[in-house]
Order: sequence, then structure tokens, then C-alpha cells
Amino acid sequence: MNFSSKLLEDAVNAFASLPGIGKKTALRLVLHLVNREVDTVDQFGDAIVKMRREIKSCKVCHNLSDEELCMICRDARRDHQVVCVVENIRDVMAIEDTGQYRGLYHVLGGVISPLEGVGPSELTIDSLVQRITNNEVKEIVMAISPTIEGETTIFYISKRLKDLHVNISTIARGVSFGGELEYADELTLGRSIVARIPYQRQE
Amino acid sequence: MNFSSKLLEDAVNAFASLPGIGKKTALRLVLHLVNREVDTVDQFGDAIVKMRREIKSCKVCHNLSDEELCMICRDARRDHQVVCVVENIRDVMAIEDTGQYRGLYHVLGGVISPLEGVGPSELTIDSLVQRITNNEVKEIVMAISPTIEGETTIFYISKRLKDLHVNISTIARGVSFGGELEYADELTLGRSIVARIPYQRQE
Repeated sequence: MNFSSKLLEDAVNAFASLPGIGKKTALRLVLHLVNREVDTVDQFGDAIVKMRREIKSCKVCHNLSDEELCMICRDARRDHQVVCVVENIRDVMAIEDTGQYRGLYHVLGGVISPLEGVGPSELTIDSLVQRITNNEVKEIVMAISPTIEGETTIFYISKRLKDLHVNISTIARGVSFGGELEYADELTLGRSIVARIPYQRQE
Repeated sequence: MNFSSKLLEDAVNAFASLPGIGKKTALRLVLHLVNREVDTVDQFGDAIVKMRREIKSCKVCHNLSDEELCMICRDARRDHQVVCVVENIRDVMAIEDTGQYRGLYHVLGGVISPLEGVGPSELTIDSLVQRITNNEVKEIVMAISPTIEGETTIFYISKRLKDLHVNISTIARGVSFGGELEYADELTLGRSIVARIPYQRQE
């Protein structure tokens, strides 16, 4: 690309350094910002720079947070005896969006994957064990993707926790709501028959 | 989306305000920046804020520029007697990328489009007429999209320039290089037969 302006070129390169954004898209975004108010663009830059400078990792659950303890860990109305273990903060947001969970979280930062060089020590598993040892936690809910790496991670954590008096559950697996049975994969369909649950009549 | 951090939320909303970027993509970009160095993110923000604050419109050709006059207008080695008229700065970049043009440009800022409320006064046509009146310009090359609006704009400009001694050309239209003849549209193929050019033997 031939830029007639260094300022333009630097801004395009900044956007193009982000994942999934090529030079053409970057140029489109920059030309959009050229037409915005100076104040709006200042706010745009500030929001991003401030976020990176001030954001913290919650010292209890490792979720992203504005303070030492995240909003969820600080919330006294939530059930502090249940901890949901997830891979990343996107999963926390997805579960929060359902509005169905009122306990706390623990963000692992990934799953055990020898192929990608991620061992237990790269994750926040020690911190989870510590947290359960020190606090009154009754239940751990494993909300981890049902992949080979995910299952390995659940297995490893359950072994580490076996001497602590804590119940371990996993989120239910089965056929999606709204999904057509014939398109469900064999493994999911097979397991959802084996793990069938009593029908609850809607009163 | 349920954010456990205001800083995160503000940064996501900043990205999501850009065209073509939804909340999920914005979150992915922000989480990528969280893992980058503070300095890198500072540079990212600076590049964008600085661009918006300092970038100018070239007072001659209306291209984006770091100074009063853009790099192209300042370049004494270019042919100042030929001016290529384009819709926007993306077209300037596309033509510069070909490396086939050594004249100057004039950025209209769009094309005449009554349906979208764009009349000649919204474009830099007066400035083009002024520029040709005041300077020694021998040729105007119309590099404008061959749409109805584009053709209207070319027609309007040619009328405005008819009393000035300047040659007007348009970029060649025809079948694309590497394109299959059978897939070319009728109008393009028909016109490219009518406007056939002498074959130049490669020596």
C-alpha cells in the first residue's frame, strides 16, 4: 500500500496488527475515524490505553477486574460456596449472560494441552486448590469444553481435589435445545440416552 | 454482554463503535490487547489519536496529508501538468500502487448522487475548476467508477471545464486482464469491441 501520509500509515499499521484485521479493513476503519469528531477519537484511544494500563486480574478468581477483587467475588449476595471452573473470561461472560448461575468462578487461563505445551503449572490450578483448602467451598462446577484437552483437565483437577471435601459436578452434556436430533453427533446422542433424566412435567 | 469490569466494557464498546465490528469481535480484539505489552498498547492508542488530531486535507488536491501540501503535490519529479480526478483517497492509493501514473490527483470526495443528496457543491469540483484556471494543467484524467453516478459526475465536470483549454480523458474500460471473455458483462464486452485498439506487438 502506498500511503501519502505517515500519520495515516501508522494508524493503519496499528489496526492491522490486531488479529483478523488486514490492511484493507484497517484502512476502512481509519478512514471512518478521520470523519469522526476529534473528541470521539480521543475517547476511543483513551478507553483502550486506560484499559490496558489499569485492568487487573482478580487475585481470587483470575477474572479481569478493575480492582484487586472482581465485582463477582465482591458480591455478598452471590453463593460463595459454589465455584464454577472455566477456561477463560469469555466463558464467565457467557455463563453470566444466561442469568442462571449465582456462585463464583475460577478462571484457569486455558486447558492442559501437551501438544501446545500447556501443562498444569501454566494454569491457575494451584490457586484453585489453595482457594478450596482455605475457604468453605461445597461444590466445584466444571464448565469446561468437552474436548480431549478439556476432559484431561477435569480429570487432573478432580485428582488434585480428591482429598478435600468438595463435591465436583460438570455442566450437563446432551442435545442442544432447538437442535434437530438427526443432526446431533453420535457420541452426544449416545451419551444423552445413557444419561437420561426424569421428565419434569410443567405445571 | 455481562462485563465484570468497567474498563473492559469501555474498551469493547470503543471497538464495537467501528463499522463492521460487532461486540464479539470487539471483545476478541480487547482480550488480545490485554495480553500485549503496555507500551505496545500505548503506541496503538497514540497512533490513532495523533492521526486524527494532526492529519490534514491537502489544500490543493484534498488528499489526506501530514502537511498543508501532500507528498504527491510537493513532489517536483512528478508531472504537474496532468491531474487525475478520483472519488476518494482509496482510489489514489490504488492508482499509486500500480506504479503507472506520475501526475497529480484531485480527490472529489464522492460522486454526484441526487438519491443520496450529494450535489456538485458537496464535492471539490469548484476547487478543481479553480486549480485548472490558475495553473498550467494540460490533461485531466477521469478515474471515476463507470456507474451512472460516476458518468454523471464526469459529464458535469467536462461541462464545467469546456471553456478551459484542457484535454479530458477517462481511464480505459474493457475486459479485465486474466478475465474469461464469456463471463464479461454484455455492456463491457460490447463497448470493448467498439472501442478496440491497435494491437501492439511485443518486440
